[in-house]
Amino acid sequence: MSEEKEFITEWANPNLGLTARITKLLHEEQSPFQHIQVAEGIQYGRMLILDGVFQTSVKDEFIYHEMIAHVPLMMHPCPKRVLIIGGGDGGCAREVCRHGCVRQVDLCEIDEKVMEISKTYFPALSSALRNPPEKLHIHVGDGIGYVKTVEDFYDVILVDCSDPVGPGEGLFTREFYKNASKALRAGGILVQQSESPILHQRLLHDIFQAMGESFPIVRTYIANIPIYPTGMHSFTMASKQYDPLTVSCSRPVPQPMKYYNSQIQKSAFVLPEFVKDCLYRGIYSF
Amino acid sequence: MSEEKEFITEWANPNLGLTARITKLLHEEQSPFQHIQVAEGIQYGRMLILDGVFQTSVKDEFIYHEMIAHVPLMMHPCPKRVLIIGGGDGGCAREVCRHGCVRQVDLCEIDEKVMEISKTYFPALSSALRNPPEKLHIHVGDGIGYVKTVEDFYDVILVDCSDPVGPGEGLFTREFYKNASKALRAGGILVQQSESPILHQRLLHDIFQAMGESFPIVRTYIANIPIYPTGMHSFTMASKQYDPLTVSCSRPVPQPMKYYNSQIQKSAFVLPEFVKDCLYRGIYSF
Repeated sequence: MSEEKEFITEWANPNLGLTARITKLLHEEQSPFQHIQVAEGIQYGRMLILDGVFQTSVKDEFIYHEMIAHVPLMMHPCPKRVLIIGGGDGGCAREVCRHGCVRQVDLCEIDEKVMEISKTYFPALSSALRNPPEKLHIHVGDGIGYVKTVEDFYDVILVDCSDPVGPGEGLFTREFYKNASKALRAGGILVQQSESPILHQRLLHDIFQAMGESFPIVRTYIANIPIYPTGMHSFTMASKQYDPLTVSCSRPVPQPMKYYNSQIQKSAFVLPEFVKDCLYRGIYSF
Repeated sequence: MSEEKEFITEWANPNLGLTARITKLLHEEQSPFQHIQVAEGIQYGRMLILDGVFQTSVKDEFIYHEMIAHVPLMMHPCPKRVLIIGGGDGGCAREVCRHGCVRQVDLCEIDEKVMEISKTYFPALSSALRNPPEKLHIHVGDGIGYVKTVEDFYDVILVDCSDPVGPGEGLFTREFYKNASKALRAGGILVQQSESPILHQRLLHDIFQAMGESFPIVRTYIANIPIYPTGMHSFTMASKQYDPLTVSCSRPVPQPMKYYNSQIQKSAFVLPEFVKDCLYRGIYSF
């Protein structure tokens, strides 16, 4: 760990880097699963970095966590049981727990160290881990294996994982989507972060197509996440019954929000033409 | 000019940099107005860089140019005369000229060198400059001064300028908006690129408020532009009569598009809560 480090750069690939000036590298370790860093950044505040990839920051984390959680939860009429796979920083669980109708939240994170570090260095982000509401159950373990053991149980599954290299790899497979479908009840919804529609066009296309083999409705939506190197981030939703393009929600949105609102619930699914070309036709512009 | 240069970095500010690997710095010069670079990038192809700021690239330029041009043009029932201030790379003019109803396009660029360089190094981007349609009139000069001389003439004014330091500075003032209003006909619309809602919150707030002193309707809209360091870019529209939130357009959209479509015409105006806080309440999250 070098305390003199002045900058930290995520290389999205060898051709594109995003650099943040930091005042201090607060923590660095190799867990059994990944390389974990916590840096005190200036532009976005404190940052969590896994295997060199910017995961989240104190200032922008609300975008990712509101958008992965509330979009699926608000389109389900009454989500009672929610499974989060990954999400060890606690941000996703924090947002899910705000929905009064949700009675049980299971968080299945493979890397205990991420949870520990989040509790130490990111108190607001990890508030649900530090003071778990009664309905939140935290499991350290492999979400892929766990999903195989469950049948007709969850209303919503959120896959809050890192990139499809390292521990997240098996979460981007046909087998996982098939098992997730089985683990969901009628009306169930799966959402997975599905990377940048600019940098990972083939991956996004493949996720979209693969989900379609296990679910009748698959939709991709977009959020602006500045800590990721293109700023444009996708989530892909697989749904058994409810279609985000037509469903209307009557439950009130938990307040306050900093990114999500009920108009964004619809507009996030409006895709630029080049993203439609990618998803539906496998035509890649970037 | 160093041909060995391997990377080029835009420092949005001292705390945030976006780096592109390049194979060659193709051109570099100081014009009377700004420092101009053309680099052969790998991720986004050839890039135009002004005063160290990434302006556009071969691969992503369609996003900026479709979104600055078609959003205002498609909400006006019959735009006949369009003024472009800045836009020396020609991309905005190229998109505007696709609308059959437009009879006259005046392009007023202060820096002749940008036009020359675009014609030399960016043939597709500058197609309208290289083979100007009869309706396109190219002027080298100061758009701010020009607008003062015009009254009740244009249907749409597009301000396709660089950042509000350097030659673009006077385009972000109350006086300019007042003169632009005078230069517009009844039903006229002004659109200006208004920077990142994440990095330039105070500036965006000020533009929004200042436009409101000369126009009854002011709306901000968003596009995802990966070559800018947060990926989230805003345009702010000032309108005399037509409100983008309620107007409906009956003219067909020029085809093909790679980003814009008629759903984006509406969804681009749906703003995250933190952007609304910035615009309406002067509350800054970043």
